[in-house]
Amino acid sequence: MHSTENLSFVLEKVQTVKFENRPITLLEDPHDVLVRVKFTGICGSEVHYWHAGQIGPFKVEHPMVRGHESSGIVEKVGNKVTSLKVGDRVTMEPGESCRRCDACKVGTYNLCPDMAFAATPPYDGTLAKYYRLPEDLCYRIPESMTLEQGALVEPLSVAVHLVRRAEVSPGVSTVVFGAGPVGLLCCAVAKAFGAAKIVAVDIQPKRLEFAKRYGATWTFLPGAVSAAENASRLATESGLGNGADIVIDASINTGIHVFRAGGTYVQGGMGRDEVNFPITAACTKELNVKGSFRSSSGDYQLAIQLIASQKANVQDLITDVFKFEDAERAFEQVKAGAGIKTLIAGVEE
Amino acid sequence: MHSTENLSFVLEKVQTVKFENRPITLLEDPHDVLVRVKFTGICGSEVHYWHAGQIGPFKVEHPMVRGHESSGIVEKVGNKVTSLKVGDRVTMEPGESCRRCDACKVGTYNLCPDMAFAATPPYDGTLAKYYRLPEDLCYRIPESMTLEQGALVEPLSVAVHLVRRAEVSPGVSTVVFGAGPVGLLCCAVAKAFGAAKIVAVDIQPKRLEFAKRYGATWTFLPGAVSAAENASRLATESGLGNGADIVIDASINTGIHVFRAGGTYVQGGMGRDEVNFPITAACTKELNVKGSFRSSSGDYQLAIQLIASQKANVQDLITDVFKFEDAERAFEQVKAGAGIKTLIAGVEE
Amino acid sequence: MHSTENLSFVLEKVQTVKFENRPITLLEDPHDVLVRVKFTGICGSEVHYWHAGQIGPFKVEHPMVRGHESSGIVEKVGNKVTSLKVGDRVTMEPGESCRRCDACKVGTYNLCPDMAFAATPPYDGTLAKYYRLPEDLCYRIPESMTLEQGALVEPLSVAVHLVRRAEVSPGVSTVVFGAGPVGLLCCAVAKAFGAAKIVAVDIQPKRLEFAKRYGATWTFLPGAVSAAENASRLATESGLGNGADIVIDASINTGIHVFRAGGTYVQGGMGRDEVNFPITAACTKELNVKGSFRSSSGDYQLAIQLIASQKANVQDLITDVFKFEDAERAFEQVKAGAGIKTLIAGVEE
Amino acid sequence: MHSTENLSFVLEKVQTVKFENRPITLLEDPHDVLVRVKFTGICGSEVHYWHAGQIGPFKVEHPMVRGHESSGIVEKVGNKVTSLKVGDRVTMEPGESCRRCDACKVGTYNLCPDMAFAATPPYDGTLAKYYRLPEDLCYRIPESMTLEQGALVEPLSVAVHLVRRAEVSPGVSTVVFGAGPVGLLCCAVAKAFGAAKIVAVDIQPKRLEFAKRYGATWTFLPGAVSAAENASRLATESGLGNGADIVIDASINTGIHVFRAGGTYVQGGMGRDEVNFPITAACTKELNVKGSFRSSSGDYQLAIQLIASQKANVQDLITDVFKFEDAERAFEQVKAGAGIKTLIAGVEE
Repeated sequence: MHSTENLSFVLEKVQTVKFENRPITLLEDPHDVLVRVKFTGICGSEVHYWHAGQIGPFKVEHPMVRGHESSGIVEKVGNKVTSLKVGDRVTMEPGESCRRCDACKVGTYNLCPDMAFAATPPYDGTLAKYYRLPEDLCYRIPESMTLEQGALVEPLSVAVHLVRRAEVSPGVSTVVFGAGPVGLLCCAVAKAFGAAKIVAVDIQPKRLEFAKRYGATWTFLPGAVSAAENASRLATESGLGNGADIVIDASINTGIHVFRAGGTYVQGGMGRDEVNFPITAACTKELNVKGSFRSSSGDYQLAIQLIASQKANVQDLITDVFKFEDAERAFEQVKAGAGIKTLIAGVEE
Repeated sequence: MHSTENLSFVLEKVQTVKFENRPITLLEDPHDVLVRVKFTGICGSEVHYWHAGQIGPFKVEHPMVRGHESSGIVEKVGNKVTSLKVGDRVTMEPGESCRRCDACKVGTYNLCPDMAFAATPPYDGTLAKYYRLPEDLCYRIPESMTLEQGALVEPLSVAVHLVRRAEVSPGVSTVVFGAGPVGLLCCAVAKAFGAAKIVAVDIQPKRLEFAKRYGATWTFLPGAVSAAENASRLATESGLGNGADIVIDASINTGIHVFRAGGTYVQGGMGRDEVNFPITAACTKELNVKGSFRSSSGDYQLAIQLIASQKANVQDLITDVFKFEDAERAFEQVKAGAGIKTLIAGVEE
Repeated sequence: MHSTENLSFVLEKVQTVKFENRPITLLEDPHDVLVRVKFTGICGSEVHYWHAGQIGPFKVEHPMVRGHESSGIVEKVGNKVTSLKVGDRVTMEPGESCRRCDACKVGTYNLCPDMAFAATPPYDGTLAKYYRLPEDLCYRIPESMTLEQGALVEPLSVAVHLVRRAEVSPGVSTVVFGAGPVGLLCCAVAKAFGAAKIVAVDIQPKRLEFAKRYGATWTFLPGAVSAAENASRLATESGLGNGADIVIDASINTGIHVFRAGGTYVQGGMGRDEVNFPITAACTKELNVKGSFRSSSGDYQLAIQLIASQKANVQDLITDVFKFEDAERAFEQVKAGAGIKTLIAGVEE
Repeated sequence: MHSTENLSFVLEKVQTVKFENRPITLLEDPHDVLVRVKFTGICGSEVHYWHAGQIGPFKVEHPMVRGHESSGIVEKVGNKVTSLKVGDRVTMEPGESCRRCDACKVGTYNLCPDMAFAATPPYDGTLAKYYRLPEDLCYRIPESMTLEQGALVEPLSVAVHLVRRAEVSPGVSTVVFGAGPVGLLCCAVAKAFGAAKIVAVDIQPKRLEFAKRYGATWTFLPGAVSAAENASRLATESGLGNGADIVIDASINTGIHVFRAGGTYVQGGMGRDEVNFPITAACTKELNVKGSFRSSSGDYQLAIQLIASQKANVQDLITDVFKFEDAERAFEQVKAGAGIKTLIAGVEE
C-alpha cells in the first residue's frame, strides 16, 4: 500500500458534507481487491440523499461516504484473485449481495434483501481515495476505454437492465420518457438492441435536441393537455400507428397511454410514491408493466461491451469533471440541472 | 333444419329487454356449424350492459341479442367440417377473430382489433334458439360433462387465461382478490397449476366461507384500514413470509401491496378506470404487472380438460337455472348478487 | 387483367422441366391478391427437387410449377383488400397455413400440418407470370428497396427465424456453420441482433473470404481432424473462451461440440437424416438444441425492416440474374455451386 | 461435539471399498453447519463409480467417501447461521457452487465449473457419521416427513429439475423413458405439474406394473422393432394423436421419435456418449431438445413441498434399508437391480 491515508467525501447529515480521512478497509476475504478510485459520476439519487436524506425506505442515519459510479486502478488483490492484478484499469459494480438467498440464487441479485449497495444507507460509497470490493464485481476495461468512460458503466448498466426488462428486440418501437442521463442511455441501448423507432419524450426542448443527435429517431415535447391527448398526438406525429411496442419511463410520467395491445411498460425512475394507473386499459390491452431496479447479472459486462464496440457513446454525456476537493460544487451543479453527466476525479497523488 | 324460428333474448336499449324471433344465420362458410343452444351463464358484464349500456369503449347502440357463455347441441355442419357432427354436445367459444392480423398470427387472438365477440356491441350473442360459429371455436365435451357444466367453460377459460398470464407454477403462493365466480375459478385453476398456498380475499364473509370449501387454502377479510395495513396483516396471518409470489385481482382492489420482490400481479377485472398505483414500490421490487383479457389459444381446451379430470369443479358454482322465458328474472337475480352462477336454459322444443 | 396468359416453369418429373401456359388462378377469396412476378431466387431445395424429386416426406408426384422466393407488382386485388392496391411493389411469403389449427393459433403457423407452401409438392410455386396469395402474406416493400432485393426477403426471413430461435441477443458469441446464402444471412442477422462475436465456418476458403467481408467477425476452416478437435481449435483461435453461447447450423455439421454450458444450438439445414449426437455432453452441459423450419410470425416484416434500415445487405449476395426463358440454366448454375444467389427474372411484357 | 470419531465409507480404488475413521471437517465458515447423517440413498452413479471408477470426465483418482443423497440431524451450527439450530431434522443438497461465476450469478449454479459435488471426484461424499455443508444447502424437513423420506429429496429434486426443463404444464402429454427411480419420480412430478397424460416406457414389465400404480396413466413396453415403429405404436396405443408434447428420457433411449411438431425432449440420464439423432426431423418439427443436469435453484424446496403436500410419494419407492456397516451389500443389491430405492442408515450411536 502506497499510503495509509484514505480521504473520503462524507455526508454527515442532511445537507451537510465534509472531507474525512477514513481507515482503508482490509482485504479480509481472499477474493477481495482494493481499488484506487479515479472517477466518480454523480446521479440524481446522490443529490437526493444530500438534500433530503432519504429515498423510499433508505434513510441517512449516520455519516456516510457518498458515490457509487466509479472507475479506478487496482491497488491490491487478495490471494485468491485470479482475473485481476495490481495496475489494472477497472470499473466497479457498486453492490455486493449475500450470494445465498433465493433472489441471489435465481439470478436476480439486485433484489437481494441483504444487498450492501455503495452509498445507499448504511453502506459507505466510493467517493474516497480507496474502495474495496470483491473481484467478481470489479471489471477490467479495454484499452480503448478511458477511465472517465469507465465511470459511466454504472448508469449504462442501469439502462441495459431497463432495456432488458423491457425485452426490446430488433424492429420494435420504443418510447423513452425522460431525456436525462439514464433516459438518453436507454435510447442508445434500445438502438443497440435493434429498436427500429426510438422516441424521446421530455419537457425540456434542450434535452430533446440532444436526444435527437444522440440516439432517438424522433422526439416529442408534451403539451399542456391530458396524458391521453399527449399520447395520441405522440403516436400520430411519430408514426407509431397502433401505439408503441415498448415504453420505458426513466422519470415519473404518463407513458402508460402510448401503447399497442400487448405492449410492455418498464418503470425505472423513482420519485412520487403513487401514480394514477389506467387499470381497465391495462386489462383490455393485456399490458405488461414491470419495475426495473438497478442492474443485475450480466448487465455490467454488456455495458462495457457496448462502449468498447462503440454501440453506446458515453463520452458525449460527460459535461464536467470536478476535482475531488470540489465535490460539493459538483453536487450543486447536478442539483441545478446544469450539464448532463458530472464527474468527480479521484484524490490526487 | 327442424325449425325456421329462432327466439332470441334482445337488449333493445339500456334497461329494456324483449324476446324477438330473429332469422337463423346461414352457414355461408363451409367451416361453420349451427348449434342449438342449451344453457347460458350470466356474468357481471351482461348485467352491466343491461343496466348501463356500456363497458369501456363498447356501447350498446342498436338492439342486440345477449349471452356469451353457452353450451348446446350441433344442429347443422358446413361441408368442410370434419371434427363435429349433428348431435354432438358442445361448448362454444364466443369470439371470432380475423385470423389475419399480427395479434392473431402471434398467438394472441384475444387482442385482435377486429374481434367479433358474442354480446359485445355490435355483435349478437348466444341467448337465442340457434347460434352459428366456426368449427374450431366449437368444442365437443366429454360424456362425463353435463351441458350445464359446458356453459361454465367460458368463465373457466377466463380463469385459465388469468392464471396462465400470472405464470402460476408448482409451489408458489397466490392471493386472489375477489371471491365471485371468476375469483373462485381462479382459486381452483391455481390449485390445478400446483400453487401451494391460495389465499382468497373478499369483503363478504359468506363468499370467503364458500372459497374455503372450494379451493382456497386460506381466506382473508380486509379490515377498515389502509391497503398497506391490510396487506401486512394478510401476509402475517396467512404465513406468506416475504409476501406473495403472485396476486390475481379478479375485481378492482389493492393487491399490489402483498408482494415479494420479483412477484407478479395480474389484473383481470374491469371496473374503475384508474387506481392509485404504488409506482416506486413497483420499481424497487421489480414487480411484474399484467392485464388479462378474456381467453386465448388453448385456454378452452385446458378448461374442458380441467373439468373432465375433476381438477376444476364447476358444478358447485351453479346455483340457479332459469327457463329461457324467465331470462330477465335471471338477470335481476345476478344484479342482486344472489347465488354464485345463474344459468338460463335454452328455448324448449 | 392485361393478359390471360400465364407462362410457368414446370418440373414435369425428376430432372425434366418444361415451360407451360397455365390458367391464372381466380381471386375467389376477397382477401386475395394477384401478383405479376418480377424476380425469383433459386435455393438449394429447388435444385434438390429438380434432381432428386423429393425432400424428406415431400415427393414430386405430379408436374408442378417451381419457385418460392419472389417479388412482384400487384396486378389485381380482391374486394376486401385494404392494405394493397394495383401497382404496389411487393415481396411474397410463399406459404399459406390453415389459420384454424392449434399450431396456427399459438403463433407457429410454419408448423401447420395443412400448410400450402409454394413449390413444396403438391403445391405450385411462383415461377410463373402471375401468382395468387392472400393479402396478409403480400408485403409492400419500401421505395429504397429494389424488386431484386425483394426476392431475397424469403431467405432472409429464414435466417431471421433461425436467429430468433437461437435467441441471439446483444453481446453473445455466435458460430455459424455453412457460409452459403442462408449462413451468410444468419451472420448478418446475428450482427443486427447485437451478437458481439460471429464466427463463420465453411470448408470452402472462398466462401469464408466473402463471409469476412460480409458480417462475420472471424472465420474458421475445419481441418481433417475430429469434430471435437476442430471445435477446440475453433474456440481457441477465435477467442471464444469457454465456448460459444450460440451455434447455428445452416448446413449439416458438427457444431454441437463448440459450446459453453447452457449454450443453444439451432439446426436449420436439412440433409442427412441422422447424425451422431453427443448426448452425455448435451446432458452435463444442459444444452438447448432446437430445430428451425422456414419462417413464421413477424419474420417477413423484420426481414424487410432489416433491409430497409441497411442492417442486412442482400444486394451483395445477388451474383446473377437470368431471363425467365433461361430458368433451366439458372438451376444448372445453382447446382454447380457457382455464385451466391441466382435470380430468375419474371416473364417479359 | 459428542464424538471426534467420523466413520466413513470410502471407495479406495475401483471395486475396492473400506471403512475409515476420517477427521470431522471444521466449521471454518460461519455460515456452515455440521450434520449427523441419518439416511443415504444409493443411485446408479454411485454403483458406476464403484465398479468403473469414472463417469464422463469425472475419474476416481484418490480414495474418497461415497454418498450424496442424505438426510440427518443438525449437530453444530456456525455463528452466522440463523435458519437452523442443533437438533433440526434436515435434508442436504450435495453440491456447493462457487457463487461468483457467471453460471452461479444467472441462476444456474448446477453448471458452475467449480462445483464441489459430494462423491463426484475429487470431493468426499455423505456416507460418513458427519457431513459439513453451508446453511443454505441444508433444508429443515417438516414434521410430517420422515428422515428416510428426507434421503429421497435429492433424486426427487433431479426429477423436479428435469420436469421444469421440460416445461411440463397443465394439460400436456408426457412420455417418460425409463421407469427406474428417477423415471418414476419424473412421472410423479409431471402429474403434480398437471400433465394430463403420462406414459411410462421401460423394457422391464415389472417396472411398468409399478409405474402404473405409481403415477403413469399409461405404460408401454417397446417391441423388437425399430425406434420409429415403436414410437408409432406407442402414440397409437396410448392415444397421443399427433405425438407427445413432451418426452423425458431418464435413461438413454429413442424418445426423439414420439413427437408432435414443436414438442420438447429432455435428456436426463447419462450412459452412452453418442446416439443417432434424427436431425432432419428435429428441424422440420422444430423440436426443442434439452439436457438436464442434477438440480438447481428452487428444486430442493419444491421437492420438499411436493413430499409434504403428498403430491409426490417417495415412501413407496424405498424397498430396503441397510445398516451402515452393510454398505457394500447395499451397493451390491443396487448393482443387481433388485428393489427400487435402497437406503443405508447412518452410523449408530
